[in-house]
Amino acid sequence: MIRTGVVGATGYAGAELVRILAGHPEVFLTVLTSRRYAGVPFEKVYPAMSGMIDLVCEAYDESRICEKADVIFLALPHKLPMGFVPGLLKQGKKVIDLSADFRFSDLGVYESLYQPHTAKDLCARAVYGLCEVFPERIKGSDLIANPGCYPTSVLLPLFPLVKHRLIDPDTIIADSKSGVSGAGRSLSLTTHFCEADESFKAYKVGGHRHKPEMEEKLSLAAGKPVKITFVPHLLPMTRGMETTIYADLAREVKEADIEACFREFYAGRRFIRLTDQHRPPDTLHVRGTNLCDIGFVVEKDKGRIILMSVIDNLVKGAAGQAVQNMNIMLGFDEAAGLEFIPYAV
Amino acid sequence: MIRTGVVGATGYAGAELVRILAGHPEVFLTVLTSRRYAGVPFEKVYPAMSGMIDLVCEAYDESRICEKADVIFLALPHKLPMGFVPGLLKQGKKVIDLSADFRFSDLGVYESLYQPHTAKDLCARAVYGLCEVFPERIKGSDLIANPGCYPTSVLLPLFPLVKHRLIDPDTIIADSKSGVSGAGRSLSLTTHFCEADESFKAYKVGGHRHKPEMEEKLSLAAGKPVKITFVPHLLPMTRGMETTIYADLAREVKEADIEACFREFYAGRRFIRLTDQHRPPDTLHVRGTNLCDIGFVVEKDKGRIILMSVIDNLVKGAAGQAVQNMNIMLGFDEAAGLEFIPYAV
Amino acid sequence: MIRTGVVGATGYAGAELVRILAGHPEVFLTVLTSRRYAGVPFEKVYPAMSGMIDLVCEAYDESRICEKADVIFLALPHKLPMGFVPGLLKQGKKVIDLSADFRFSDLGVYESLYQPHTAKDLCARAVYGLCEVFPERIKGSDLIANPGCYPTSVLLPLFPLVKHRLIDPDTIIADSKSGVSGAGRSLSLTTHFCEADESFKAYKVGGHRHKPEMEEKLSLAAGKPVKITFVPHLLPMTRGMETTIYADLAREVKEADIEACFREFYAGRRFIRLTDQHRPPDTLHVRGTNLCDIGFVVEKDKGRIILMSVIDNLVKGAAGQAVQNMNIMLGFDEAAGLEFIPYAV
Amino acid sequence: MIRTGVVGATGYAGAELVRILAGHPEVFLTVLTSRRYAGVPFEKVYPAMSGMIDLVCEAYDESRICEKADVIFLALPHKLPMGFVPGLLKQGKKVIDLSADFRFSDLGVYESLYQPHTAKDLCARAVYGLCEVFPERIKGSDLIANPGCYPTSVLLPLFPLVKHRLIDPDTIIADSKSGVSGAGRSLSLTTHFCEADESFKAYKVGGHRHKPEMEEKLSLAAGKPVKITFVPHLLPMTRGMETTIYADLAREVKEADIEACFREFYAGRRFIRLTDQHRPPDTLHVRGTNLCDIGFVVEKDKGRIILMSVIDNLVKGAAGQAVQNMNIMLGFDEAAGLEFIPYAV
Repeated sequence: MIRTGVVGATGYAGAELVRILAGHPEVFLTVLTSRRYAGVPFEKVYPAMSGMIDLVCEAYDESRICEKADVIFLALPHKLPMGFVPGLLKQGKKVIDLSADFRFSDLGVYESLYQPHTAKDLCARAVYGLCEVFPERIKGSDLIANPGCYPTSVLLPLFPLVKHRLIDPDTIIADSKSGVSGAGRSLSLTTHFCEADESFKAYKVGGHRHKPEMEEKLSLAAGKPVKITFVPHLLPMTRGMETTIYADLAREVKEADIEACFREFYAGRRFIRLTDQHRPPDTLHVRGTNLCDIGFVVEKDKGRIILMSVIDNLVKGAAGQAVQNMNIMLGFDEAAGLEFIPYAV
Repeated sequence: MIRTGVVGATGYAGAELVRILAGHPEVFLTVLTSRRYAGVPFEKVYPAMSGMIDLVCEAYDESRICEKADVIFLALPHKLPMGFVPGLLKQGKKVIDLSADFRFSDLGVYESLYQPHTAKDLCARAVYGLCEVFPERIKGSDLIANPGCYPTSVLLPLFPLVKHRLIDPDTIIADSKSGVSGAGRSLSLTTHFCEADESFKAYKVGGHRHKPEMEEKLSLAAGKPVKITFVPHLLPMTRGMETTIYADLAREVKEADIEACFREFYAGRRFIRLTDQHRPPDTLHVRGTNLCDIGFVVEKDKGRIILMSVIDNLVKGAAGQAVQNMNIMLGFDEAAGLEFIPYAV
Repeated sequence: MIRTGVVGATGYAGAELVRILAGHPEVFLTVLTSRRYAGVPFEKVYPAMSGMIDLVCEAYDESRICEKADVIFLALPHKLPMGFVPGLLKQGKKVIDLSADFRFSDLGVYESLYQPHTAKDLCARAVYGLCEVFPERIKGSDLIANPGCYPTSVLLPLFPLVKHRLIDPDTIIADSKSGVSGAGRSLSLTTHFCEADESFKAYKVGGHRHKPEMEEKLSLAAGKPVKITFVPHLLPMTRGMETTIYADLAREVKEADIEACFREFYAGRRFIRLTDQHRPPDTLHVRGTNLCDIGFVVEKDKGRIILMSVIDNLVKGAAGQAVQNMNIMLGFDEAAGLEFIPYAV
Repeated sequence: MIRTGVVGATGYAGAELVRILAGHPEVFLTVLTSRRYAGVPFEKVYPAMSGMIDLVCEAYDESRICEKADVIFLALPHKLPMGFVPGLLKQGKKVIDLSADFRFSDLGVYESLYQPHTAKDLCARAVYGLCEVFPERIKGSDLIANPGCYPTSVLLPLFPLVKHRLIDPDTIIADSKSGVSGAGRSLSLTTHFCEADESFKAYKVGGHRHKPEMEEKLSLAAGKPVKITFVPHLLPMTRGMETTIYADLAREVKEADIEACFREFYAGRRFIRLTDQHRPPDTLHVRGTNLCDIGFVVEKDKGRIILMSVIDNLVKGAAGQAVQNMNIMLGFDEAAGLEFIPYAV
């Protein structure tokens, strides 16, 4: 049985990893770290899981972690992982990093958005862990850069269509809406209950750091540089992300071509569901699961497509996809530990 | 003092009219009608207003209404108003209709969306009551077609820019999000608490009846036919509507041109607020008020503008704008009875 | 492998049964009935479960159900089950009824609250399925009356203390708060989003039909008739039920006695968790699970105990406990199919 | 026209004072202070009120405040007001303090709960500003201790009944539920959106500092020491507080006696509404207003009364009652500036 550890286990993505790994049939959870809660039993930090997780949070200690775990998940703020990854890889561990540190091929873009990179040589080794798009590359990897939540919700509906040139990549506009848990557990006025409840608003308009991440991967699909318009918004709910995407169809492309493209590209992928044309995807239908529901409508008169996707930002947008990456890396069923059936309500 | 009546007082728009008119300094509320609650005191239907409204709901009776009221608000389902309006106008009443019945200049469009029209001769007489855009026409009118909530949130940010040719009207995409009260008080699974709570989704993608309404008015602004893409979504909250709009800028247009256009077009209009570039409009900031906050960001590299507007769908999107229309028709301060200060939270 | 069927599968309790049974390791789900949706695939009624449940809803047909299933769950409105149960039992099926029809020993009470009973002879045969309290009786039964949600949340903290005479049963006051899903999927103004959102209120004060159900079982624990005060309230959230209970302690009873009583009574019961004295139970910590968290505080100066319990009304308060009953009846691990780990948030 | 100032204007109670005073017909708002936001325009702190409040937050400066304002509201954390009040009174100002500093007659109790008192001589001069209970004393006062939100919701239904000996004060149990805004604008995990959303729980069970405040005032009503049981809970909504109270009726007391007592005690008080017996008070019905709705049910068989009250914790529970106190002190209509009509939804 594989042993797994979570570094940064007490943020929301970390805690979601704990929830999923604790119920995973093929792995053990053996070590949890937390700067803030070192020495505190995990179940005291998250009493929801009381009686179910008997690990105590520890300070980060490379040799101890390497001794205890075979696969290590890093659920840390950006910049920290690039300091930890080299050592972990040197000891032969498999690493899945949920931060942005290893997501970019173009280090210049990374450094302009985040900070100077201190493990540049490893960037080429890292595989961008968008599971349904790069499964083969993930299979052979020992360092996964787990995609951001917004990029996941934008790329899953767009990648197949851009790759197969069914839409014009220069016309893409993505209007995303995220539940508050996407902002994490750190306190701020924006995530204070009274300021988020019964409120809806855009934020970081035109300037969110997930946009260049999307653009790099879409450029890869298009085989040429792609720039998009992306606006994130904050929803008055905890979990869930919806993205509505607008793009011009390539010449002569019909509804049936779109559907066929999706069906082929995602054939056999259990976490992608195409929704009925008359029932747009609903965040509630994927809550707590690793699913991504995708729907679309073609506006014939304008030659435009409207794509809609929904995910749970903490699962498919973070911890769930990370575990799916592990499953693929280790040759497990990709759905192992992730077969959550959505609630009716 | 002017006497006012509300026909269809027990739906949400009707009840909001009651709330606003009951506190209006220049008018009396003298008659309320309701098919369903005829004979029932209004305060029994809405115990929130217990002790504040002493009228009893009545069945619709034209002669009685005309005897009791000078200005009549119709807050009814589509199709009913076109049966009532001719009689009310004949008796010299001023009428403000919140339905779609008199919103269209092009009756063919109306009839294709709703039903055959039975008062066609009055359509030309009706003025589309978008207060900040058509104040002069409203002033002299006795029949106002009060705009829909989505059209209000879309037209207020777009009309000035289209009219002054600062954007290319053929590229407009409007992504709207509405609180549940927009769907009214009629019961449905969509508005059942458990199905809307913690849920976000698009609906009527590409096919909402408010789209042709927007298009007709934008065509007027553009001086040529305009078609847009419009997608409404349902928010897990009661009141509030946000619209994010994407459009290509006309050649050479700069941020300062946009700002100048808004400042001039809406000079002196108390219900329009331009928000700071770094703080996108927030539905919570206009909740319960007749305000429309507008923000924008220019994407220079793409030559595109992102516009954002927020309103309270029941106030500026329905009852508040209706009262504002009355104020303008009667020569009152346009803000009379509408000077609600938003809550901090 | 055991085959199971759900009669009334499209209400919220029925759909929750489907969710749980579909993931249960020891049983198959073979038949679903629904009056309203007969002939419709279940996944069309609940698109959240699209791709996961391939059954089509059927009209109720006793012989067909008996042919298809070994254990039958009835998730129907009161009165219907008493018509179906006799036939099912006659065919040797095990039946778990989620309605009130078989919950009462005293038929006079049942008939005064609901309606005349048409299967009186079976009432004595039915076992009240409060799993942690009556496990032995459940084990040998073929007809389980699954407890109501409020009774479950009230009885689990009270039963041990009343039985061991640590509190005075004549002083019990239970103040309960329920999420909206407790009211089911039927449409009503009370459960209309806009009327429940940002609202909190009591309802059926002093007259809820679950009160006599609690009283009958508490009387059993006390060995004498017990009457309590019970007030239910409606919370602006979908799932979750909290009950705060007040009672006078019996003479000389100390905090440690209470704790010891709970620890002994619920020894080995995995779904009961005693919370830390400084952290009262939180509905969020049991959401989606079969857990019941119990906390208490002793007010020494008044000789009074304050008990708090939380459950998910659809799981431990309905479908989860029903499956737990099945597990006990069939000799499975009582947690089979119910080992949900709560979300962090 | 009277000039008013708010010290501590940027917390939620302070901002609510600003909202109400800005719309008050008899007063001007002339000065706002804020430690944290000194030098910042108020409308930048609360962009919801942009364009409506043109004051800049200042640091606290006694002489400047006294020069600018006649009535001063203190919306500060406990302990600060006792330092400011002596100086303000010396300069002849009228002071309304929203903290606990001057609420207690028994300083020993205050000091055991909060801290040593540094303005003891003024405590006897302060009047407890529960407007409908102590209007005469308020009228002549220059120092008002504005009641806490929980005490307001508990005392308004209880005071008349205890004073007229209709209930046994030794049996009182108050189960309160508060919206999150009661915890203020300070950041904490408890008020982080994701931890409060879809969650309900008790807190500070048996030990909330508002309990002794209630007990002191109830003792005054009873003419003897009264101890009660009080449990506060946190609701997943922003505004609103409901309290359900249980008490034994005094001998021979009937429903009609209770109703008569309320009708007489609160005769002519516009902010108290008795609700229909079949419609328990709903927090939504008083949202944003200074109203307190009270309902009750008598359990004849147990000789017990169930009382329910609802208020908006930020209005009647804080800023609204503070303004009402000012109105009474200055001889205005007690409802001046407070005539908000509740929303239908």
